[in-house]
Amino acid sequence: MQKLANFVQDRWIEGTGDGRVLTSAVTGEPVATITSAGLDFRAMLEHARGIGGPNLRKLTFHERAEMLKALAKHLNDIKAEFYALSTQTGATRRDSWPDIDGGISTMFVFSSKGRREMPNDHVYLDGDVENISRGGSFVGQHIYTPKLGAAIHINAFNFPCWGMLEKLAPTLIAGVPAIIKPASSTAFLTELMVRRIIESGILPEGALQLVCGGLGDLFEHLGCQDTIAFTGSKYTAEKLQQHPRVVGESIAFTAETDSLNMSILGPDAAPGTPEFDLFIKEVRNEMVAKAGQKCTAIRRIIVPAASVSDVVEALSETLSEVRIGHPANTDVDMGALVSQGQRDEVRERVAALAAEAEIVFGGSDDFDLVDADHDKGAFLMPTLLLCEKPLNATAVHSVEAFGPVSTVLPYADLDEAIALAKLGDGSLAGSVVTNDNAVARALVLGTAAYHGRLLVINRHCAAESTGHGSPLAHLVHGGPGRAGGGEEMGGVRGVLHYMQRSAIQGSPETLTAITHRWIRGAEERDPGVHPFRKTFEQLELGDTVLSQPKKVTLEDIDQFAEFTGDTFYAHTDEAAAKKNPFFEGRVAHGYLIVSFAAGLFVDPDFGPVLANYGIDKLRFLTPLNHDDTMRVRLTCKQKTLRAGSGYGEVRWDAEITNQNEEIVAQYDVLTMVATESNYASLQ
Amino acid sequence: MQKLANFVQDRWIEGTGDGRVLTSAVTGEPVATITSAGLDFRAMLEHARGIGGPNLRKLTFHERAEMLKALAKHLNDIKAEFYALSTQTGATRRDSWPDIDGGISTMFVFSSKGRREMPNDHVYLDGDVENISRGGSFVGQHIYTPKLGAAIHINAFNFPCWGMLEKLAPTLIAGVPAIIKPASSTAFLTELMVRRIIESGILPEGALQLVCGGLGDLFEHLGCQDTIAFTGSKYTAEKLQQHPRVVGESIAFTAETDSLNMSILGPDAAPGTPEFDLFIKEVRNEMVAKAGQKCTAIRRIIVPAASVSDVVEALSETLSEVRIGHPANTDVDMGALVSQGQRDEVRERVAALAAEAEIVFGGSDDFDLVDADHDKGAFLMPTLLLCEKPLNATAVHSVEAFGPVSTVLPYADLDEAIALAKLGDGSLAGSVVTNDNAVARALVLGTAAYHGRLLVINRHCAAESTGHGSPLAHLVHGGPGRAGGGEEMGGVRGVLHYMQRSAIQGSPETLTAITHRWIRGAEERDPGVHPFRKTFEQLELGDTVLSQPKKVTLEDIDQFAEFTGDTFYAHTDEAAAKKNPFFEGRVAHGYLIVSFAAGLFVDPDFGPVLANYGIDKLRFLTPLNHDDTMRVRLTCKQKTLRAGSGYGEVRWDAEITNQNEEIVAQYDVLTMVATESNYASLQ
Repeated sequence: MQKLANFVQDRWIEGTGDGRVLTSAVTGEPVATITSAGLDFRAMLEHARGIGGPNLRKLTFHERAEMLKALAKHLNDIKAEFYALSTQTGATRRDSWPDIDGGISTMFVFSSKGRREMPNDHVYLDGDVENISRGGSFVGQHIYTPKLGAAIHINAFNFPCWGMLEKLAPTLIAGVPAIIKPASSTAFLTELMVRRIIESGILPEGALQLVCGGLGDLFEHLGCQDTIAFTGSKYTAEKLQQHPRVVGESIAFTAETDSLNMSILGPDAAPGTPEFDLFIKEVRNEMVAKAGQKCTAIRRIIVPAASVSDVVEALSETLSEVRIGHPANTDVDMGALVSQGQRDEVRERVAALAAEAEIVFGGSDDFDLVDADHDKGAFLMPTLLLCEKPLNATAVHSVEAFGPVSTVLPYADLDEAIALAKLGDGSLAGSVVTNDNAVARALVLGTAAYHGRLLVINRHCAAESTGHGSPLAHLVHGGPGRAGGGEEMGGVRGVLHYMQRSAIQGSPETLTAITHRWIRGAEERDPGVHPFRKTFEQLELGDTVLSQPKKVTLEDIDQFAEFTGDTFYAHTDEAAAKKNPFFEGRVAHGYLIVSFAAGLFVDPDFGPVLANYGIDKLRFLTPLNHDDTMRVRLTCKQKTLRAGSGYGEVRWDAEITNQNEEIVAQYDVLTMVATESNYASLQ
Repeated sequence: MQKLANFVQDRWIEGTGDGRVLTSAVTGEPVATITSAGLDFRAMLEHARGIGGPNLRKLTFHERAEMLKALAKHLNDIKAEFYALSTQTGATRRDSWPDIDGGISTMFVFSSKGRREMPNDHVYLDGDVENISRGGSFVGQHIYTPKLGAAIHINAFNFPCWGMLEKLAPTLIAGVPAIIKPASSTAFLTELMVRRIIESGILPEGALQLVCGGLGDLFEHLGCQDTIAFTGSKYTAEKLQQHPRVVGESIAFTAETDSLNMSILGPDAAPGTPEFDLFIKEVRNEMVAKAGQKCTAIRRIIVPAASVSDVVEALSETLSEVRIGHPANTDVDMGALVSQGQRDEVRERVAALAAEAEIVFGGSDDFDLVDADHDKGAFLMPTLLLCEKPLNATAVHSVEAFGPVSTVLPYADLDEAIALAKLGDGSLAGSVVTNDNAVARALVLGTAAYHGRLLVINRHCAAESTGHGSPLAHLVHGGPGRAGGGEEMGGVRGVLHYMQRSAIQGSPETLTAITHRWIRGAEERDPGVHPFRKTFEQLELGDTVLSQPKKVTLEDIDQFAEFTGDTFYAHTDEAAAKKNPFFEGRVAHGYLIVSFAAGLFVDPDFGPVLANYGIDKLRFLTPLNHDDTMRVRLTCKQKTLRAGSGYGEVRWDAEITNQNEEIVAQYDVLTMVATESNYASLQ
């Protein structure tokens, strides 16, 4: 039998001893053994910190994002192997899709966001410059830098691939090495995927280590730069969070734990409406997918009292059609729970729920199985309960039966629906099914503080909805209270979990040197030639062109108004303009001012500047009256190389002043500038 | 003698029993007694959640910010009383300034940021819409809503006013009620300020409660919507963080604890340079201010080995000039520590440091006092130590002597300076004094992950620098590891600590209804009249004007080029434009396109639209070739009433398309629109 290996200090090592036997969820047969006994966990941490971290931090955010993309492509090419093995976890092909394809797609999204939303550099800037001095010689800027430790990823059994990849992707983008500990029962699938990742040679040395089995004394060696991302039971999370090293070193700990997720059927969504049908379909899917073993599955079905019997009837009908059995059989809708032990636990919890609620569907051990054996596999019938007095109940709001189990809770009015939702004491995901946006707003704002994610389903978005139970890489995943209080993913938000935010103060010149974003007040360099004549590589932050002054006459304003058709009264009608509290009379159009500014700062001949692709944060601060004189300063502010494209993005700081040195307008001009070699080829 | 009262459920209540006697730091005489015995802490929490929270959440962010401003003004008017009492804490007038004026100024900054950086609404939007479906019928948006619990503020003794106000300001802006527990030894000053706050009648019922004394069984009643902000010792923080309710309910806990803050003298900053003198001055100030009782004070003075004797000599000289004594005497530079108990603790810690380091200045009990008595007040001599082998030392990096005590640590090179900084295991604040920006970058990026705030001081910013030890409301305050891992302030960042982030998914129309920001894909309403004819109140999100099409000819491009002077080759030179990889030939100027768009969408006559004050996120997505036809859609996207000003800000979503329905440009147009009554008065 296969003994799962551990990937330690860039070598595959077997743990000592026989280890624990892992069995197939479907057949009960042994699949592998698992043990991490004998590993040197302290050395693993030091390897991550001393080798993996420095290797990753040599790269920019973009370079790490490219690495992630290569990895995602590689895994996508060979995913058939993962699907085949996934059957042993009890998952149907449809169940495996969010785990395998979903995990790979999460890496693609993080790669894309890393390149689009982060700089091609080593420091991530958080927000704008803070003006903290009157004269502007002392300013502030928040930055994020990678934590100089290891990220410990502790994953749950239900998503052996996605669970690993959704944590790994932001960690790698951040520039932090990971030590991954999958849940034992499905670790065989994680181990296979890690093998393929390592074989690809895409990751640098030390970036990833794997522990199949317990974490031994690893926690004893944690330090203040390490981070922990945990998915699993609240009980285990609490134990780990209270570990003396975790508390003593103030280790960033994000936990995604238990959750009694709710879905509310709106009062408008009566039987016969599209929303009623969408609701039934959503609840059915959430009960059946992964045999209900999803942290985000709907556990509490909150419905108008008047619709209870219709909901129970419709759900019972659709659940009665669910075919249960061997997940490899394509006729099967629902596979097995991960183990018979897990099944027994769910049965116990159903019993606890049944003390407060009536079982209205399922709950029996006598049901048909396709290609499978009740005694060998961990099969369970979908089970629906009804709790008539849910405001006075406790178990239905606190006992998470981690299987195809859910409870219907009637509500009288919206306030009661909100009160019921809150009794879950913090959840990962909630949903509202309604076609009344006032109802949607009331329910969402009434319950948002208890939820990490909420979705509103109606006829307009149903076709494209990703569903109640699907965390997306773009959006945060996690929730308050019982759900653990953590947050993962959410694009860059998830990356920042592995980084430290610091407020930096100093002169504009010093902060420009540190952040690689030019700050007003820093040196305005004489570039020698017009900066539009410089290639991307030649441009330096601070390169400045200060234009000649230009007088703007009434004739200019008239001509612009006539030419563009923008005859807005403030530009064309002296009397009307004077009525305006901001103007003393006719003023130049904002669009005229920035157009003239471009005329003043451009160098017209063919050169490395390829295009102006946009403008950011344009603000008109002082009106430009006719016969005022304007001039513009344009300064190279930030450079973002688009590797492989032949160009880079250059952001320029533009400032227009009048004859009294008052600031007329400030904005960023965005251009694409050719690289040296590309420019040579264009000429 | 005064017995400090508690403000409980909107009534002033004395605790039962005699309580503990608080003494003057200067004279040792009793000032007040303190006890919270007998309070009903559960009822306090319920009062905050049931009365204070709903009262605050009726208001918008702007309304709460206005309330804060009124409070700050009120406190500013009556601050003399606080200064007078502050002397009893041992603080000189200069020491009291950051506490009293600093606290009030923090409220002003939060009020200003609340109005400038948050919406005049109830939901704070985090980031842009996330496009999570191909067809755009299902989108995502992160929002923040107030946590529906109480904020527990546990403050340290050293800043009885600022410590309260810097936590209270973001909490109130968030819409969350606070229960404040000051440290006992200086609670008399906090109690006075809370009395004045309550008397002002500015806060709604339930918004603020005060506990003078212990928190009793309050922690037993905490729930998942409560938050804790703690400043104090790491030891106490750890104890509270491990409380079963805190862990069980995943309560957001931000801790600001111990810190062995460092300041590094750059290798360039040799004796004789302005930076050397700035460094000596900074270290002296940080040792002497508040008698060194600042969480951010410099405890570790990291200097080039070659400069050690010069640094010790210069510091000893300046410290020898420090006059110690009664803080009310204006000749005095340094007052008393908070209590004799605190002084004894500092002495013990100096002894611990002296095992690894040599005392090179101070450390004696025999020093002159102005207007004060050694036996009655808690006076201590500034004490400087020198640790010759700091890389092998432990106490100098871990023992925080919370008084006028600091240790000089020599370094050989920058790597060693960084290594020494890191040995503090996480700090609140660090500084680098250098005029070499390459050194600044190396030291800042090398140590940022260990610091919540870092400043670089040089001759260019020194005059305006707020100094190593001053947290600012604009910037985050907190630090990793030993410093507690927390974060406070930082403008809106600090407000968000008291709110829950949730990812919301649904149709653009639904999300528009929830967020009050119109999303592309939501209904484009027919406003009946041109939307420029509507007042602020009349405008509705979604109000849209779709322009007529307009053909852009070569003549237009030529005329615009000639008129503006923007003769950039892509617009004027067919052959050169063709060499450009993005264009097939001459294209219209971006500025021409947006100018024409304005001409197409404006309604020119005098009306409620007062001004276009800016543009955001303009992106040119498809080039507009000559003879292409453009049209523009302008849709009311977001409304922000500027209460009391007679207008509101209206953000419009603009989209320019070509004859093939390709998107040429997207941007936000920002306007000021008169309110109904103001518009009537203007006409």
